[in-house]
Amino acid sequence: MSKYSLFGKFTVQEGKRDLLADILLEAAASMKDLDECEIYIVSISENEPDAVYVYETWENEQAHQNSLSLEATRTLISRAKPIITGMERISTLETVGGKGI
Amino acid sequence: MSKYSLFGKFTVQEGKRDLLADILLEAAASMKDLDECEIYIVSISENEPDAVYVYETWENEQAHQNSLSLEATRTLISRAKPIITGMERISTLETVGGKGI
Repeated sequence: MSKYSLFGKFTVQEGKRDLLADILLEAAASMKDLDECEIYIVSISENEPDAVYVYETWENEQAHQNSLSLEATRTLISRAKPIITGMERISTLETVGGKGI
Repeated sequence: MSKYSLFGKFTVQEGKRDLLADILLEAAASMKDLDECEIYIVSISENEPDAVYVYETWENEQAHQNSLSLEATRTLISRAKPIITGMERISTLETVGGKGI
């Protein structure tokens, strides 16, 4: 199976962007020792005060699926859910290679 | 200055996707020792046979700008140009943190 990348956008309640970014950074930290998760990058956009973007690269699609049922992930999802107003999967990709993976 | 991420899509002439992916992987390899380039990931999409996606994270926006005038980058751009039919900057982001950077 190929490496699997996702690029997604979360929209949050006004003023909650930094809180969601912090929760997602905790998610990234919780996957520090999870080798199947190669990349989990949290970003914001100057022009969109209520959006947080995440780019993830996983060893394969199954590894990403499995991560959703981890205790740490579920706890973070339950904390983030009340402030999230929208989620958009911008791209689902098969990663060929590159620097940093 | 913040870390700077870009997500972009190249469209290529029919049948040239793998060639462009190879050129972009060479670009990634040429930046192996360039610390300012933290991430340069090349991906394709199952549903878009003529597209190649690149996600990049740089130490800052200036570092990305500087990279465009590197000899290696210019050579690769000149090789890729004839087969590229379109370029779309999907997102320009300020990266907060995460795993892999």
